[in-house]
Amino acid sequence: MRKQLVRFGISLDQQLLQTFDRYLMRKGYATRSEAIRDLIREALVAQEWRDDQETVGTITLVYVPHRPGLVRQLTEVQHRSGSLILANAHVHLDAHHCLEVIIVRGKSTALQALANSLISTKGVLHGKLTMTTTGIPLT
Amino acid sequence: MRKQLVRFGISLDQQLLQTFDRYLMRKGYATRSEAIRDLIREALVAQEWRDDQETVGTITLVYVPHRPGLVRQLTEVQHRSGSLILANAHVHLDAHHCLEVIIVRGKSTALQALANSLISTKGVLHGKLTMTTTGIPLT
Amino acid sequence: MRKQLVRFGISLDQQLLQTFDRYLMRKGYATRSEAIRDLIREALVAQEWRDDQETVGTITLVYVPHRPGLVRQLTEVQHRSGSLILANAHVHLDAHHCLEVIIVRGKSTALQALANSLISTKGVLHGKLTMTTTGIPLT
Amino acid sequence: MRKQLVRFGISLDQQLLQTFDRYLMRKGYATRSEAIRDLIREALVAQEWRDDQETVGTITLVYVPHRPGLVRQLTEVQHRSGSLILANAHVHLDAHHCLEVIIVRGKSTALQALANSLISTKGVLHGKLTMTTTGIPLT
Repeated sequence: MRKQLVRFGISLDQQLLQTFDRYLMRKGYATRSEAIRDLIREALVAQEWRDDQETVGTITLVYVPHRPGLVRQLTEVQHRSGSLILANAHVHLDAHHCLEVIIVRGKSTALQALANSLISTKGVLHGKLTMTTTGIPLT
Repeated sequence: MRKQLVRFGISLDQQLLQTFDRYLMRKGYATRSEAIRDLIREALVAQEWRDDQETVGTITLVYVPHRPGLVRQLTEVQHRSGSLILANAHVHLDAHHCLEVIIVRGKSTALQALANSLISTKGVLHGKLTMTTTGIPLT
Repeated sequence: MRKQLVRFGISLDQQLLQTFDRYLMRKGYATRSEAIRDLIREALVAQEWRDDQETVGTITLVYVPHRPGLVRQLTEVQHRSGSLILANAHVHLDAHHCLEVIIVRGKSTALQALANSLISTKGVLHGKLTMTTTGIPLT
Repeated sequence: MRKQLVRFGISLDQQLLQTFDRYLMRKGYATRSEAIRDLIREALVAQEWRDDQETVGTITLVYVPHRPGLVRQLTEVQHRSGSLILANAHVHLDAHHCLEVIIVRGKSTALQALANSLISTKGVLHGKLTMTTTGIPLT
């Protein structure tokens, strides 16, 4: 993957730039370019998801694993959506709570339907779909 | 208010820039500078509100005006918070529903408390606090 | 508009209910029913907007009124979208900044296009579209 | 962990209830109780994070692993925050892009600082902090 960097100028009011420079430092950015690239990519990822393109997300679930049938039910939903799922990670938060992260890839409507189906399962205490990207249009 | 524009360069990968240029056109921006300024200001407004600075917002309420006591109750809450309120606008959505927008200015925690108090009133069907800015640090 | 109230039971774990009751008090709700109705309506308004139904919103703009041509440009955009606009409110934040709220009604895609067009205008420092509702499906 | 279920009644207008019932079906909920529990928990998780309580989150990063020094830099940031990190998962999205999910636990301000530090690293194309919960107050 050869990348070709393009450089261009933007103009900003001096006071706005000073406020932005303080913001960068708080957020830990080394350069303005990097911070602006992140703002641009964030806007583009939101657009990707609205356009129902092929994209990538993570589904985070906190649940009570001892609830009868729950783990089997979550597993079945995932098996039926096998082609959307790339990987899973699992941690025991305490004796009664688990967190699972499922990394998914596909059209945004399909990922949202899968997330709805998992999050609405009884015994799942909290669930969220996080929208990210394949990275390809952002490189 | 004399403004001094500063011009500086940022570097972006060519492919990312092409994707961003398509995004700009869809959003109606005439120049990259203007689109990037908007992304920067959006990030700064969010920070202003997290920092509990003096700021500006709008509280949007949809409610049922014929509900006994409701209009009086909303008016009383607003009178008690008089110093936070700059202006109001009101429209009749239909015979049974009103929309009111209240423009407010103050510390973000005070604006949030006022919004909570109005939104939780019985008969208010939907309410939202929109976070914007005095404009001063963004000029 | 005659309304018919329906009462139904829901079950909640005791500890979750206690946490929810503390939340209610902080938010200013008088009853659990009212707080739950608000959570339900909030979820339904988000769905209304995703479904591109006829809906209502507010567009909040902070801008620099002395910028040559800006007020005329904002006015023209609004005139071209006349049928979407219900009302306006305007305040002078200080000598150099105005806030305008435009109350709009229509399909959510049309409201988003109008908001994009106003927010991307040069001289508009910050703009936001707030999604609310005609109230009809929420009563 | 013995749980004690409490049952209580809420009243809703008939039309609102019908709209809510359609929403439930679309989202895949089997019962109103389960859907309302999810709305309640979502509101409580947002409050947990605002209150800076001990909580749980996931940090999702999409990055270019071949960028010199990047993997080492991300690893170092994580080692310095070792006590906040519970687990990691990693997938290769294609030859040039990786996705990593880091499961974190701690005060919400500490988790946000760690997320800022990872997301602002050059070569990270997109990053997000997802706020969830230990599950304890939501059971």
